[in-house]
Amino acid sequence: MHSFEVLAGDFVKRFNRAHFPSSLPSLYDPAEYFLSIGGKRVRPVMCLMGNELFGDIGNEAWHVAEAIELFHNFTLIHDDIMDNAPLRRGKPTVHTKYNMPTALLSGDVMLISAYDSLNALSEKHLHTVVALFNKTAREVCEGQQLDMNFEKLVTVPMEDYIHMITLKTSVLLAGSLQMGAILNDASEEDQKHLYEFGKNLGIAFQVQDDYLDAFGDPGKFGKQPGGDILANKKTFLLIQALATANTSQKQALEQLLNNNDPKKVEKVLQLFRDTRVDEWAKSLKNRFFDLSLEHLDRITVDNNRKEPLLSLAQFLIQREY
Amino acid sequence: MHSFEVLAGDFVKRFNRAHFPSSLPSLYDPAEYFLSIGGKRVRPVMCLMGNELFGDIGNEAWHVAEAIELFHNFTLIHDDIMDNAPLRRGKPTVHTKYNMPTALLSGDVMLISAYDSLNALSEKHLHTVVALFNKTAREVCEGQQLDMNFEKLVTVPMEDYIHMITLKTSVLLAGSLQMGAILNDASEEDQKHLYEFGKNLGIAFQVQDDYLDAFGDPGKFGKQPGGDILANKKTFLLIQALATANTSQKQALEQLLNNNDPKKVEKVLQLFRDTRVDEWAKSLKNRFFDLSLEHLDRITVDNNRKEPLLSLAQFLIQREY
Repeated sequence: MHSFEVLAGDFVKRFNRAHFPSSLPSLYDPAEYFLSIGGKRVRPVMCLMGNELFGDIGNEAWHVAEAIELFHNFTLIHDDIMDNAPLRRGKPTVHTKYNMPTALLSGDVMLISAYDSLNALSEKHLHTVVALFNKTAREVCEGQQLDMNFEKLVTVPMEDYIHMITLKTSVLLAGSLQMGAILNDASEEDQKHLYEFGKNLGIAFQVQDDYLDAFGDPGKFGKQPGGDILANKKTFLLIQALATANTSQKQALEQLLNNNDPKKVEKVLQLFRDTRVDEWAKSLKNRFFDLSLEHLDRITVDNNRKEPLLSLAQFLIQREY
Repeated sequence: MHSFEVLAGDFVKRFNRAHFPSSLPSLYDPAEYFLSIGGKRVRPVMCLMGNELFGDIGNEAWHVAEAIELFHNFTLIHDDIMDNAPLRRGKPTVHTKYNMPTALLSGDVMLISAYDSLNALSEKHLHTVVALFNKTAREVCEGQQLDMNFEKLVTVPMEDYIHMITLKTSVLLAGSLQMGAILNDASEEDQKHLYEFGKNLGIAFQVQDDYLDAFGDPGKFGKQPGGDILANKKTFLLIQALATANTSQKQALEQLLNNNDPKKVEKVLQLFRDTRVDEWAKSLKNRFFDLSLEHLDRITVDNNRKEPLLSLAQFLIQREY
């Protein structure tokens, strides 16, 4: 069994190479640039861990891991265009560094390359893996569309928001794990529990991310809190606050959303505390995290095989607060 | 053997259905809208014809034909964003009717759906067809990038321009034919000639398209000539004119490109005639057309099996002028 660090290191060693021909730098340099600015490579490692849960890591798992990472980067390039984002991982986004049409096209060729990696699979699992890959890919697009739809609404029901987060963030974690499992012939029941483990872990992670953006310790979190608040971004906290605030709290919150009060972050955080969404978020995160662990528990392999996934989950979801 | 009309009719009957779930209209309605505005469906029919050249049309050919048409429409949606085009086939483009982010995403889900259609293939040909599909898809993206690069240049060598047109237009015709041939187990030699038939036919078609935009009979061509000239679009005619004009002709042409002379179309057409690029274009078109027919001729099946492809080629490339 291998830890996240070992698998991520091995994956990066394989992945850090030219992925595109050198024949047309105006198209392929932007694509290579984006792949070179890094990322934690969590999704491909989840594919490898899902694979190792049921046996030795096979050659095919590395191909699928690569396809997943290429797909993930494709979505980031296109999301950055749609969201008009200037930076990604502290570096200029592709449409900022180059231009929009080139960013669009380099995303397209990256998605096509993902299918090249999948095409390296042998016949045994090709159809099943591609079907799950396509389903997941479509859902990620749906998540992005819902996210854009929701940004135009004043209020969003919590259930719908969780559905959007599930599509936009969780299904790729879940699908990555399941694709790895398929390649080592896991039973459908085990595949299902592994998928649910990843899905619920992803939601817990997003709740935590929203919490930390509001209440995180800048020393540990690495950035000043309140970025989401300043951007009026819909988060678990804001949606729950709007849903549970009393009339005067709600009025105050809506006023803050519509103005550029210099003390906006401070005042919104106080309203979050007044409506107790800080406590609520902690318990929501723990609820999804516990659910994910229950599914991990129900997978019919020895507990020691689950160790790397458990460690990764615990690393991603800090229970310290 | 079936004619273009019959195959196109059959294809349209199968293709005219909902391709996406009804669950998220904000994403999928734009995709369905674009598929519904039609098109001649030349590429999927070429796949069917390439298939029938070597046997009966099999079920798998219909799936690949569908994948090809979905891919083609994906490229059009994204090209329209990149080219800032307001209309396609006389109807509003997706980013005009809806918005840019939704157009981008609906293109993405269309490409993913193309791979769903390919995933319906049986193991026998899946790897080979997907490999050719991916190669072709990548080349079409390269063609679009080159096209955008060239629009920023003053002059483009004819050889480079033909290369761009080959990638942007011809390889998908060629690849469609070859994918059909692969599915009926054509020999590699026959596949190669069929591919070259499609490739050269595509170039001949583009030369003709450029010629008709300048010199076409408005009655037959359906629109006023000179659209490319007014848009300063790089065409076979303009590139050849710039390359072969004498100093004063070149100066006059460059001046017309940089100004909005009310008689621009008329004057550029006169310069095209003076530099004899009208005659040159006819002979260039015939050269590529003849080359395509030579390759068709060398395919080792009975001539009567080639009849539909020959008719289609003759229909696409009118030799009347």
